Amino acid sequence: VSDRPILAVTAGDPAGVGPEIAVRALAQPDVRRALRALVIGDGAVLEAAVAGCGLPLRLHPSRGPGDLDDDPSALDVLDVGALRAPPRHGVVDAASGRAAMAAIERAVELAREGTVDALVTGPINKEAIRAAGSPHPGHTEMLAALFGVDPRRVVTMFTVGRLRIFFLTRHHPLVEAIAMLTAELVQAGIVRAHELLRELGMERPRLAVAAVNPHAGEHGLIGTEDDEIVAPAVERARAEGVEVRGPVPADSAFWQCRTGAHDAVLALYHDQGHIAAKTVDFFGTVSCTLGLPVVRTAAEHGTAFDIAGRWIANPAGQVNALLAAAELAALRSARLAASGPGRSGS
Amino acid sequence: VSDRPILAVTAGDPAGVGPEIAVRALAQPDVRRALRALVIGDGAVLEAAVAGCGLPLRLHPSRGPGDLDDDPSALDVLDVGALRAPPRHGVVDAASGRAAMAAIERAVELAREGTVDALVTGPINKEAIRAAGSPHPGHTEMLAALFGVDPRRVVTMFTVGRLRIFFLTRHHPLVEAIAMLTAELVQAGIVRAHELLRELGMERPRLAVAAVNPHAGEHGLIGTEDDEIVAPAVERARAEGVEVRGPVPADSAFWQCRTGAHDAVLALYHDQGHIAAKTVDFFGTVSCTLGLPVVRTAAEHGTAFDIAGRWIANPAGQVNALLAAAELAALRSARLAASGPGRSGS
Repeated sequence: VSDRPILAVTAGDPAGVGPEIAVRALAQPDVRRALRALVIGDGAVLEAAVAGCGLPLRLHPSRGPGDLDDDPSALDVLDVGALRAPPRHGVVDAASGRAAMAAIERAVELAREGTVDALVTGPINKEAIRAAGSPHPGHTEMLAALFGVDPRRVVTMFTVGRLRIFFLTRHHPLVEAIAMLTAELVQAGIVRAHELLRELGMERPRLAVAAVNPHAGEHGLIGTEDDEIVAPAVERARAEGVEVRGPVPADSAFWQCRTGAHDAVLALYHDQGHIAAKTVDFFGTVSCTLGLPVVRTAAEHGTAFDIAGRWIANPAGQVNALLAAAELAALRSARLAASGPGRSGS
Repeated sequence: VSDRPILAVTAGDPAGVGPEIAVRALAQPDVRRALRALVIGDGAVLEAAVAGCGLPLRLHPSRGPGDLDDDPSALDVLDVGALRAPPRHGVVDAASGRAAMAAIERAVELAREGTVDALVTGPINKEAIRAAGSPHPGHTEMLAALFGVDPRRVVTMFTVGRLRIFFLTRHHPLVEAIAMLTAELVQAGIVRAHELLRELGMERPRLAVAAVNPHAGEHGLIGTEDDEIVAPAVERARAEGVEVRGPVPADSAFWQCRTGAHDAVLALYHDQGHIAAKTVDFFGTVSCTLGLPVVRTAAEHGTAFDIAGRWIANPAGQVNALLAAAELAALRSARLAASGPGRSGS
């Protein structure tokens, strides 16, 4: 019996690089030593990717997480067989979108049954899933709907090495994102990040909030938001028992987290956290979705239609997504084991 | 005859960590192999720092850049002897401010004579130099005045590894910095960065301009500044013959520069560039001052009065400042040698 976590790995859009990076990453011995993986997708597409990349893997058709070969030379595949014909690489196609969705739906079923510890999703194409009839713009919304979770409770966290980043705001113009900030919003963001880190198994997470302005406003000399919005929010969160520091000048906060002074940083705007993570390691940045019944991770890149089927995709992002999912799942199951009755099926 | 560049290294405020990091960095063989250094400061203070740190260095009192011992066991010191009594570590003192200024003035004289290739400055204390009668808030303004250069022509560039960053705006509240942007300002910033990289010896520098908004505004869906201000500025600069790309999403631009796709990135606001550089390597980030007759570099930290005299300062920033100065000076002298009559004194 292995205690390595079992990950459901969806292959993503079959016309993109998803199947390729899934099999390339799972051909790496260090990845296999850290986790057990069940790849969910179209069997023929995954077979073609293994052959195209010349990987020393044989497919093992699996009936589910209870039926894993798990030998490093085997690729456990749950064939959702949704494709009638091989995909045309790099082409938006409703059939590919349907296949990508079928894999995600199957993965969520397994997670709901409690037979997998985390999800790692391959890249999907928004147009393809729209053509296939999905009302959702992306994974996050689709997963929230499938799990029956309020999408507002679902939160993205980036990880790259020891650096963990939460985002208070996402896809807003920079000036509007700053205008949206209120002490209530910042406080709520701090408290939610704290809750989610505790759900991940951290007893007493140490948070930092990055500042809005250079030098955290230098006592009001360089802008007022840090003194008037961020500092009061930090105070109130501390009064609620959250261990949080800030506003920390943004050019220190992320470095300090990388070097162990914080467990995570709350970024106040999209690029603040994106620049920090991706400048450190663009391909090593993993997007984690928290607030679902299981952790979901994904590489921070898309379907790369321009290079799909050329078997030259870089699996570094997928490798990091797999390792991050395994690490977070292990943290969480240690907490669950400590706190009460075990998960069913584990 | 050595062709390693000669650097004038000012010791900074004698009550801070400047003398300590100067001598610690110059005790490192890899640093000595890359450059020749003349430390300018108070001889007794430097002697105390060598002793305090227990470094295997003997002071060589030097009369100037033409009189260097340059043996790795020797520390060439130009004693400006401005202190009557040993400094009190960690205390703001006009006498320390005067000593720091005397070293900078002497270094500028040597640069004006053409006998040193670059300046590396130790950290100074703003209050101490003000108490000593300086009208300047910091090094940049002081150096501009001493060299007789319009301070508006003096530009800061950060370096950390292959990543080079120029800043269009600096110490402004974030929202105001964005409000200040115009196509003319961005265009001027691009052209000036291009000129300065050419002065450094790059034949055809490849610039990128970081975008204001997430995903560079996604064609106007996430803010208008990138389409309405940055893109036209880039077009106009290209029409002037500058090789420049942008607006590049900020979470890609700096990573691309680190990995060789650009020679430098123009950051549009303080934290955009500061987060990129300092999250990669806080202590490895070097501040370079361009637009002066010689390059000046400095570690991106202050006098650290809290640990001065305890001989525990980390010289990593100073080491990087020395190596960056040597590299930039070598680039520049290669260009000067190629383009016409040699510098006097070299």
